[in-house]
Amino acid sequence: MPGNTFGKLLKITTFGESHGPALGGILDGLPAGIQIDLERIQRELERRRPGQSPLTTARKEADQAALLSGIFEGRTTGTPIGFTIPNADARSGDYSHNEANYRPSHADYTYDAKYGMRDHRGGGRSSARETAARVVGGALARQFLEQLYPQGPMPAVSAYVERVQDIAMPSPPAYHAPERVDAHPVRCPDPETARRMEERILEVKKAGDTVGGTVVVVARHIPAGWGEPVFDKLHADLAKALWSLPAVKGLELGSGFSGTLMRGSDHNDAFTSASGHIRTATNHSGGIQGGISNGEDIVLRIAFKPVATILAEQETVNRAGDAATIAGRGRHDPCVLPRAVPMVEAMVLLVLADHALRQRSARL
Amino acid sequence: MPGNTFGKLLKITTFGESHGPALGGILDGLPAGIQIDLERIQRELERRRPGQSPLTTARKEADQAALLSGIFEGRTTGTPIGFTIPNADARSGDYSHNEANYRPSHADYTYDAKYGMRDHRGGGRSSARETAARVVGGALARQFLEQLYPQGPMPAVSAYVERVQDIAMPSPPAYHAPERVDAHPVRCPDPETARRMEERILEVKKAGDTVGGTVVVVARHIPAGWGEPVFDKLHADLAKALWSLPAVKGLELGSGFSGTLMRGSDHNDAFTSASGHIRTATNHSGGIQGGISNGEDIVLRIAFKPVATILAEQETVNRAGDAATIAGRGRHDPCVLPRAVPMVEAMVLLVLADHALRQRSARL
Amino acid sequence: MPGNTFGKLLKITTFGESHGPALGGILDGLPAGIQIDLERIQRELERRRPGQSPLTTARKEADQAALLSGIFEGRTTGTPIGFTIPNADARSGDYSHNEANYRPSHADYTYDAKYGMRDHRGGGRSSARETAARVVGGALARQFLEQLYPQGPMPAVSAYVERVQDIAMPSPPAYHAPERVDAHPVRCPDPETARRMEERILEVKKAGDTVGGTVVVVARHIPAGWGEPVFDKLHADLAKALWSLPAVKGLELGSGFSGTLMRGSDHNDAFTSASGHIRTATNHSGGIQGGISNGEDIVLRIAFKPVATILAEQETVNRAGDAATIAGRGRHDPCVLPRAVPMVEAMVLLVLADHALRQRSARL
Amino acid sequence: MPGNTFGKLLKITTFGESHGPALGGILDGLPAGIQIDLERIQRELERRRPGQSPLTTARKEADQAALLSGIFEGRTTGTPIGFTIPNADARSGDYSHNEANYRPSHADYTYDAKYGMRDHRGGGRSSARETAARVVGGALARQFLEQLYPQGPMPAVSAYVERVQDIAMPSPPAYHAPERVDAHPVRCPDPETARRMEERILEVKKAGDTVGGTVVVVARHIPAGWGEPVFDKLHADLAKALWSLPAVKGLELGSGFSGTLMRGSDHNDAFTSASGHIRTATNHSGGIQGGISNGEDIVLRIAFKPVATILAEQETVNRAGDAATIAGRGRHDPCVLPRAVPMVEAMVLLVLADHALRQRSARL
Repeated sequence: MPGNTFGKLLKITTFGESHGPALGGILDGLPAGIQIDLERIQRELERRRPGQSPLTTARKEADQAALLSGIFEGRTTGTPIGFTIPNADARSGDYSHNEANYRPSHADYTYDAKYGMRDHRGGGRSSARETAARVVGGALARQFLEQLYPQGPMPAVSAYVERVQDIAMPSPPAYHAPERVDAHPVRCPDPETARRMEERILEVKKAGDTVGGTVVVVARHIPAGWGEPVFDKLHADLAKALWSLPAVKGLELGSGFSGTLMRGSDHNDAFTSASGHIRTATNHSGGIQGGISNGEDIVLRIAFKPVATILAEQETVNRAGDAATIAGRGRHDPCVLPRAVPMVEAMVLLVLADHALRQRSARL
Repeated sequence: MPGNTFGKLLKITTFGESHGPALGGILDGLPAGIQIDLERIQRELERRRPGQSPLTTARKEADQAALLSGIFEGRTTGTPIGFTIPNADARSGDYSHNEANYRPSHADYTYDAKYGMRDHRGGGRSSARETAARVVGGALARQFLEQLYPQGPMPAVSAYVERVQDIAMPSPPAYHAPERVDAHPVRCPDPETARRMEERILEVKKAGDTVGGTVVVVARHIPAGWGEPVFDKLHADLAKALWSLPAVKGLELGSGFSGTLMRGSDHNDAFTSASGHIRTATNHSGGIQGGISNGEDIVLRIAFKPVATILAEQETVNRAGDAATIAGRGRHDPCVLPRAVPMVEAMVLLVLADHALRQRSARL
Repeated sequence: MPGNTFGKLLKITTFGESHGPALGGILDGLPAGIQIDLERIQRELERRRPGQSPLTTARKEADQAALLSGIFEGRTTGTPIGFTIPNADARSGDYSHNEANYRPSHADYTYDAKYGMRDHRGGGRSSARETAARVVGGALARQFLEQLYPQGPMPAVSAYVERVQDIAMPSPPAYHAPERVDAHPVRCPDPETARRMEERILEVKKAGDTVGGTVVVVARHIPAGWGEPVFDKLHADLAKALWSLPAVKGLELGSGFSGTLMRGSDHNDAFTSASGHIRTATNHSGGIQGGISNGEDIVLRIAFKPVATILAEQETVNRAGDAATIAGRGRHDPCVLPRAVPMVEAMVLLVLADHALRQRSARL
Repeated sequence: MPGNTFGKLLKITTFGESHGPALGGILDGLPAGIQIDLERIQRELERRRPGQSPLTTARKEADQAALLSGIFEGRTTGTPIGFTIPNADARSGDYSHNEANYRPSHADYTYDAKYGMRDHRGGGRSSARETAARVVGGALARQFLEQLYPQGPMPAVSAYVERVQDIAMPSPPAYHAPERVDAHPVRCPDPETARRMEERILEVKKAGDTVGGTVVVVARHIPAGWGEPVFDKLHADLAKALWSLPAVKGLELGSGFSGTLMRGSDHNDAFTSASGHIRTATNHSGGIQGGISNGEDIVLRIAFKPVATILAEQETVNRAGDAATIAGRGRHDPCVLPRAVPMVEAMVLLVLADHALRQRSARL
């Protein structure tokens, strides 16, 4: 059944395979009257596109989005925004050897098991290329959130690479401005850590291998009150959004796994009050309590596994179940994390914009 | 807007506050013809109910579910199953002191921020008591899954307490039969670890404090092919389901966070073939690839924070934002994990049953 | 798959068979802060309940709703409202003869064809008894709509019996206050027509037969702007709501079928302006243009077929496909229309309340 | 909130304005393995496109659909099918005079009331041009339904113009093969009635006026068992689908309004049995009983109002509420019915395909 739509009041539906003519989507539910800066959408796509640095796959894609509806004279009209992103550099030939053999830890086998067939050119629909459409949606959601409180502090969402394999930032999760994050192509805001991460990625790339790590995303200036108990808790929707990205293996909110080592008396976030604003002294809750935002920074950490496409020869089986060997010959990323940063932001932005709208129905 | 429904083809909607007359729910979408054993539903509620052992809150609830529709002559009819669970031991008086003061790390403040009011008797809707209705739904989903493949290996879902604070099972995550899990009230299948966990919980209880830890849940005999790319990936729906439970702070699938330390060449799960069945040599994927089950065990680890209700006096603020102090006087759990086990199973069962049905539309 | 939920931002889910212990439902999405008058809910149930007059079935049901959650100190809290309505006078014995034989123009055959089984006590889930839960939902929606505009004209929804067989009101569809409608048990606001309708219904009842007719429903003081193009147009959602009621065979909006005889130049509703308010000179549009309310009265006419349960012997077949005869022995309504009035209002109220909330997301 | 998606297991989401660069949509949920004939999709678009005969608007559109995903080597893959249809002949200049003035019985005023703005080039999103995307979806749904029962009688859906103003076919509603329907550009399968309809339409066109009428649609060879009580009854979903089309003012199923003049004893459809097949002697039910298909022809009649765009000068108001006059200068249809035929079929096909999939979850 259909699984290509995300969101309730702000809904994104996407389509497209890695080697078809185009991918794209429809964002439905954005209120009328939002000023849209098309260049900013394109800039977010640039952050995700392949070929942007030696740290990423060599596939060259301009990833130029065409917005086809829903915007009139620079503003949203309340009608759905349809868009397409052409696939320019889709060399299907690279992938023909994959028709029969299942690539380990890819979705080849499971797509066949599910559908009885698959588009075997590249990852088909399971390719991370699909996330380009999400980035367009997230970029539109961001502009909505930024215009939501003309008086107030502007909601902001920023992600960064916190750790590549064992090379980690020395500081705890915090908000880092996108400019600082993008200062280094590895997208870690700590220059020294970034340099070491880059070194590691290039070393691994040379070996035809891959590495994973963690991305941290922080949303700030989110007002208290967003989130819908009991199933659509804000962090439950964030979890679904982030786990829908390729290669995710773990997620933490606030204190995460390490919080389970504490006692309640240490873990509880005491309420304080300063000039009329209710705040918490600590933020083990990660900005969400009882599934509803409490006004503190929303802090999430996501684990991304090492990319499955490697150049070494691997043992596998073919469709018939016979033993086979396979070697990665397509273009691939040695480390998905630098490009995961805009994907993570996009999903968080889509969830927050959805809940901003949902909150409008909370009171008479 | 409404957030009390979970699922697409199998939908559960729940209602009820901790101190109202009853809670309950409606399970809609269960196919006709499933034989229902009502006693097994009740037994799953027993595993969740308060007062079952000295490790849990002293609140006494029979948690007797009344099933009001959708079952005729012992079988489901395809129509919705409505049910209620009365609240018997709801002493609202215990909680009247909470009307004005916000309990730290509870949902008091955020409910007020969202709705402009709240039912301040106990946790109201934010109480973990709400999960009783989920357990009924999960128990029904389990019976559906068990009858799905009359020939085949029976799908099974079992959870257990893996770690309480720093006291952890020595073995990696694996399937442990419910009988072994329930052999000790702490619901850890390793007797020696269980004994030490119990000790710790009682020690902490005596101190008026609380502890958290991790629960592992394993689903086995799930056929390859369940899960709906790209947003309703099987693990994305599992993530949403599990993050919607109270007190969850972290989630891992398969190799989880530790997998991010590996290289791709070590992390990939090689395909093998034995007597016609395609399997993987390792299971870093945790039973899901590209968002679709691959036939291996589905393995998830969930972090539960220490319960927020403690007996010590805590600094906080009241609705007006003035400083106040608060002490837990209600009955509470020193450690939520033993009772979280059936909640975790229920949510996993609901997701799997939903996807079992969704998979029926995958092919012509 | 599940089909027992209606609405997007205000969602009602219902359960229950005609001869089970109870029916009920959950209304989820009502904003916090609405003052709820429980007696008014009960009064709306009285209008629908069987046995209220000689014009209806002799089944005696108090139809006493128990509201179990979501209301605290007289106001909605924003959490779901669960409720049950016990079945008191369910004499299953009356219906045992129906186990094998399919009653003509009932749902017996189609339920068996769909589910491979059915609850053959009475109509089971297909009984109009199911609509009691909708009436509770509609009564809550009405109180929300009434409190929506403290300054403004209060939205109001009223339905009435316009025609029974060929006995019709002489005047065109218009708003008639509920007090006038309820002045006669047939629920036609024109006393002389009501008298003749009653006569006809009693005559038909005596003959063991049944009649149908039309109900008109008018919603007034609905602000311009409600409705969501292109699929969730206000009248599309109203159509789905009304066609989901038992026995509906036709629906008209505004000029309806007779409007198709006119030319565009006569049918168009000219805009006028009086003291700053934009109005239309005529209302062939029935209050909705382009799927969005325009501020004029919303006017719908619904055709209800003659009830299928008759006392005469009828030719039919049994489950095996063999010829059989069947005679209605259960208690039934000679004419469903007087009791359809509150059902129609309930569905219109649920749709309007849903769209009142949906409209909150239309603009930045 | 979003309203541009229709369906549950087969979901279509559409986008696009009459005068933007393109419209299009995404069809999500079609099972894998359906053979797709792209030319047949195009042929269905031809039936809907403007400029196909002197009976329609003079706007010239090739309406060439580009299918961008979800089909591989001639078969569906189970992934979403994205498509675009460029707007070629969009002369916005024609409509600039409409910026300020509200066209009577159009959606100009209500869009402004809803969104606070509108795309005033042509009808924008409210233009019937939007239905082109639905026709693509319906054409895909048709191919799915046709391949559903390789052995069995092939499900078929065919609509036709039954009446234009007072010029009506002499025969009752019945299935007429598409070839017969398309034999005359007015799409009435009775040649003599078609001739008179054409005459009337051309006469009205000459007068700068418009006419409406009725379309009948019949679905045959639909198996018993489709439809989901109690809210997603098959005819409730059909009603929503059809009422979401532009210009619809009435709908009847089976006996419709005229059935309300009968007594139950005449109206009931007696069951009969012939060579093991359960059938009904009459079909007042219109193929649906209790919201579920019974295997008989599904028969619906839809009323379409006269098109609102006329050439005569009309009184209206502008955005400020001041009196104004307006005259239609754009290209328009004197009668929407010939082009409504493929739109009606598309919506019925989408509903039936959706319910074909939903029925797969009815039984264990």
